[in-house]
Amino acid sequence: MEAKEILRQYISKIVLLSDEQFEYVFSHFKPLTFKKGQVIISEGDQVDCEYFVVSGCLKTFFINDEIKMYILQFSMPTWWTSDYNALYNDTKATINVDCITDAEVLCISNKDREKICSEIHQIEHFFRWRTNKGYVASQKRLLSFMNNDAKKRYEELLALYPQLYNLVPKHLIAAYLGVSRETLSRLYSSH
Amino acid sequence: MEAKEILRQYISKIVLLSDEQFEYVFSHFKPLTFKKGQVIISEGDQVDCEYFVVSGCLKTFFINDEIKMYILQFSMPTWWTSDYNALYNDTKATINVDCITDAEVLCISNKDREKICSEIHQIEHFFRWRTNKGYVASQKRLLSFMNNDAKKRYEELLALYPQLYNLVPKHLIAAYLGVSRETLSRLYSSH
Repeated sequence: MEAKEILRQYISKIVLLSDEQFEYVFSHFKPLTFKKGQVIISEGDQVDCEYFVVSGCLKTFFINDEIKMYILQFSMPTWWTSDYNALYNDTKATINVDCITDAEVLCISNKDREKICSEIHQIEHFFRWRTNKGYVASQKRLLSFMNNDAKKRYEELLALYPQLYNLVPKHLIAAYLGVSRETLSRLYSSH
Repeated sequence: MEAKEILRQYISKIVLLSDEQFEYVFSHFKPLTFKKGQVIISEGDQVDCEYFVVSGCLKTFFINDEIKMYILQFSMPTWWTSDYNALYNDTKATINVDCITDAEVLCISNKDREKICSEIHQIEHFFRWRTNKGYVASQKRLLSFMNNDAKKRYEELLALYPQLYNLVPKHLIAAYLGVSRETLSRLYSSH
């Protein structure tokens, strides 16, 4: 399925747009393709866009002072990602986004998103719904990080992204769980 | 300042409403007062409302199987809280909200929020802005939890809520930081 149709189906689950309205909305998105390993956002960048994943898998991550990587999110098809703190507050990126696999995305600028939200009430509704969903996912992940042990977090990860295990190198899964590779191997073998 | 004026000032920072529009919006909020210690949402409850804090301080928290408490958020004036997972997905509450101090709140039901969002485009915009802000705060807290040691989390907490230290019992601050009371005492004395 092409990018346009994937976005259309995704939006139409939440709001009804006429063909003309959808064409207009879609005209503000820019299709981009990336190769495995390519960087989309780097710490320190000016961040102007957010990204809707059409195919492939991205990771959103942070590298601390000791060069340890923490993965905030894996983004599969129909997920969105960006450095939203930088995007909404017009500050430099503090996190990174790159491609775990070859990927196709649709990119929309902050300015264009705000423009179509103010022009089309249903689109404002759609983006509110989208952020509500992201907020709930983020709260769940926080709670899981505070409360669960690594084994439970691992099981939650597999439930959330069943296809991830074959797609993503093990050291990235460890960086999402916040455990060492050795701990992950133990979890993996006991699963 | 009365509750109505506090909400009005808060909304008017983001969107412009006529007096008539604001009166209409406000008619969907219900003022409630609570005593210190009173419970607003309990695990297992049906969740129909979200709460805008006018005065006082609430806590949003989770109790795990070992009866250990994790605090997700302290809510001070102009903050919002609820179990948003339960509220948006019409499931039973998995977290709790209660009052650290006497508190006044404005309560709005999920149904009424959706109603005024669909009726008034600016209100939809306001709630999208509000959730965007909550999403960014939640991502920052997650990152901080993954990356920082307890001392840094303590310093971030004081920066985020400077007035909290005099308001909130120390064991609750420990439950927010995810540390023992003993660790908190060490952080406190070294500060």
